[in-house]
Amino acid sequence: MKTLILAGGKGTRLWPLSRELMPKQFIKIFDGLSLFQKTLQRALIFSKPEDIFIVANREYKFRILDDLRDLNVEIPKENIFLEPQAKSTLPAIFWVLRNNSGKFAILPSDHLIEINEEYRNAFITAEKLSEKFLVTFGIKPTKPHTGYGYIKPSEKLENGYIVDEFKEKPDLEKAKEFVEKGYLWNSGMFFFDSKIFVEEVRKLAPEVFRAFETHADIEEVYSNIPELSVDFGILEKSKKVAVVPLSVKWSDMGSFDSLYEIFEKDENGNAVIGEKPVSISSKNNLIVAQKLVATIGVENLIIVDTEDALLISKLGESEKVKDIYKALSAKNDRRVVIHRTAYRPWGSYTVLEEGERYKIKRITIKPGKRLSLQRHYHRSEHWVVVKGTARVYYGGKETLLRPGESTFIPAGILHRLENPGKVDLEVIETQIGEYLEEDDIERLDDDYGRD
Amino acid sequence: MKTLILAGGKGTRLWPLSRELMPKQFIKIFDGLSLFQKTLQRALIFSKPEDIFIVANREYKFRILDDLRDLNVEIPKENIFLEPQAKSTLPAIFWVLRNNSGKFAILPSDHLIEINEEYRNAFITAEKLSEKFLVTFGIKPTKPHTGYGYIKPSEKLENGYIVDEFKEKPDLEKAKEFVEKGYLWNSGMFFFDSKIFVEEVRKLAPEVFRAFETHADIEEVYSNIPELSVDFGILEKSKKVAVVPLSVKWSDMGSFDSLYEIFEKDENGNAVIGEKPVSISSKNNLIVAQKLVATIGVENLIIVDTEDALLISKLGESEKVKDIYKALSAKNDRRVVIHRTAYRPWGSYTVLEEGERYKIKRITIKPGKRLSLQRHYHRSEHWVVVKGTARVYYGGKETLLRPGESTFIPAGILHRLENPGKVDLEVIETQIGEYLEEDDIERLDDDYGRD
Repeated sequence: MKTLILAGGKGTRLWPLSRELMPKQFIKIFDGLSLFQKTLQRALIFSKPEDIFIVANREYKFRILDDLRDLNVEIPKENIFLEPQAKSTLPAIFWVLRNNSGKFAILPSDHLIEINEEYRNAFITAEKLSEKFLVTFGIKPTKPHTGYGYIKPSEKLENGYIVDEFKEKPDLEKAKEFVEKGYLWNSGMFFFDSKIFVEEVRKLAPEVFRAFETHADIEEVYSNIPELSVDFGILEKSKKVAVVPLSVKWSDMGSFDSLYEIFEKDENGNAVIGEKPVSISSKNNLIVAQKLVATIGVENLIIVDTEDALLISKLGESEKVKDIYKALSAKNDRRVVIHRTAYRPWGSYTVLEEGERYKIKRITIKPGKRLSLQRHYHRSEHWVVVKGTARVYYGGKETLLRPGESTFIPAGILHRLENPGKVDLEVIETQIGEYLEEDDIERLDDDYGRD
Repeated sequence: MKTLILAGGKGTRLWPLSRELMPKQFIKIFDGLSLFQKTLQRALIFSKPEDIFIVANREYKFRILDDLRDLNVEIPKENIFLEPQAKSTLPAIFWVLRNNSGKFAILPSDHLIEINEEYRNAFITAEKLSEKFLVTFGIKPTKPHTGYGYIKPSEKLENGYIVDEFKEKPDLEKAKEFVEKGYLWNSGMFFFDSKIFVEEVRKLAPEVFRAFETHADIEEVYSNIPELSVDFGILEKSKKVAVVPLSVKWSDMGSFDSLYEIFEKDENGNAVIGEKPVSISSKNNLIVAQKLVATIGVENLIIVDTEDALLISKLGESEKVKDIYKALSAKNDRRVVIHRTAYRPWGSYTVLEEGERYKIKRITIKPGKRLSLQRHYHRSEHWVVVKGTARVYYGGKETLLRPGESTFIPAGILHRLENPGKVDLEVIETQIGEYLEEDDIERLDDDYGRD
């Protein structure tokens, strides 16, 4: 059994926890694991690492590689498909399945799902059904949820149903009706045989099929295909769709409300990620913060604090986060794009403070990694090693720096910072200069092919 | 006319904006001025600098001196009375007035008050009345407030009234009755002739009077007197109390609710201190933050964000902040005592980050000031100058460092950091070591007499 993990989601609705360059599947809020890593663990139940495939926007390449390395999972390089543009799920799945034959479990990487015996059995059932059908998984509803799409089952098969119809997110009345009639939540998880799927795409989404046939270059393919979801482009049109019902705890993590729903609550209905708050008469709140939070007499609130942005929303209205996101994007506010912590192929950095003519960063470099050979024209840099060992190239010389040691790189001088060790290297960088933006960089050599 | 400013208040009810070592009178949230500085400006309307007196806990000495220097106001050293303990207002006022004769306007430094013609006239009236009476100022109520004490006026005098009775904070029904009957809010501002006041203390609070007569040492005086407010200890007992009515905008800033009341609001009733929030359907909130705040569908909330603590309270319930404060104090939580920014006689420092075996601080040193001659046994320190010029003494040598220049102080080495210039000096300090607390310091010489 092969598994394809869809890791391209943007997840704008969990802002400010998620950002454009750090979408929700990569945030580590559950037991120190990202949702992508949890999906990977599910994939490993049925598939060997060489049978696991990943498709995502290429912006997320290093997030994926980091998460794989954290779990010590080695996926062959050719199994990772990096899209030049986001064109929704149909092109993503098709790209992988036209190049790899077999039976594929297809898993979104930004959902939270309980793994139990029923989950395991459902995939074994789905594998059998996939010989004749494009298989979807339908979650048995626990309430008339208006935030999910529904699947209407018809003719009974052995361990499944023919799908009659897909229903868009309903209003509450319709949702109640759907639940009574036994409709299922559309989970976004699928099980496809590559042969059947490719043939259905040829018939039902010929513009996608043809683009991949016509162009050799993936850039051109993606420039010539529409944005199309597999639900809308194939499943709603195909006559060969079956559903396997599944009764497990599941959330699409599509909003802070769904996060609150699935999260464990204390006796007052408060769900907390972070330090335990000091609260007086406060009930049914979701609190996500990395600092002390005190609440007095507040109920049904979503409180999400990050270093540079704080969200306070009424519970039940967190879908509107996307409107906040839009408003900020329209103003080119960088706080929708990036956290104070930015990820790079070699590790990450966090801006600790920006002042007039100076900026302070904590830089973390992974073992064996190095930054590009570079120079800046407008700033000098001071590095103090606080953890690990640094190899510094600077003005033709090479030195090793240990914790407590430091160096100074004047503007205009070629330099390179490397972690030759086996543990993370942490460096405090103080930049001084008139212009301190990231684009004041000239790269002469880079392990990651960046200009 | 002399003025005595009472600057000893603790202001625990504005936590987390205020902290034990940074009470509300010193926070600069209004036009960049502290409430203490605004009080000083009011004092200067009637009094020359040499006629202004200040009494406060000695913990606040450098807060007071900083605020005075900021405004370029020179108060004689002997006019600043620093109490060894907090014993409420009666001992504070008595200490100053028994040592200085004359007519004193007495102003709390943690209130906000509008200055207009009526304000000015009230003080001129009070000065005349003070020849025969202990004078209080009564604010004409704008609503039946339950958070203030009331003064019941009786016999009419020229421009004032004899005081019949003081009333504690009433419930809403009583407050309505008080307002109808023409009672006034007890403002905590007074006007005393020192001779009359000292005589009343001798008669009505003999234990306070005697303590000052008996002991020469102020430490001993304060060890031997009870905690006593001037209201309870003198005014409620004396037969010589008059009140001058005053119709101005006034707030005792006793809670975030009173801050919300007095603060300017936008068309949705939101009062904001900081960056303009991005809000959807949000009304009647007080938002104090130094970062981006986004709100969705929230009403009647108090949102106060600081670097290390976030308060969310229902509007109308912010009095309970004192219970949060108590709960944290009981756990010895340092976040009630100090901000991430700590003030020192020579300037201030902000902890930007604490990690395993390292700590990063931004240190600001005022012109002409220097830290003690000191050494640490458990940490080395890196200094990078980012603004101004530093004079560094280190291992018997003396050097000047300019922006972009740096130095390294190993553990055990005597050193001193000085700002010889005319503008603030800013230094980024990276400490490395196994033990990084403030008590790893041996001071050999200090301009401020600290061990």
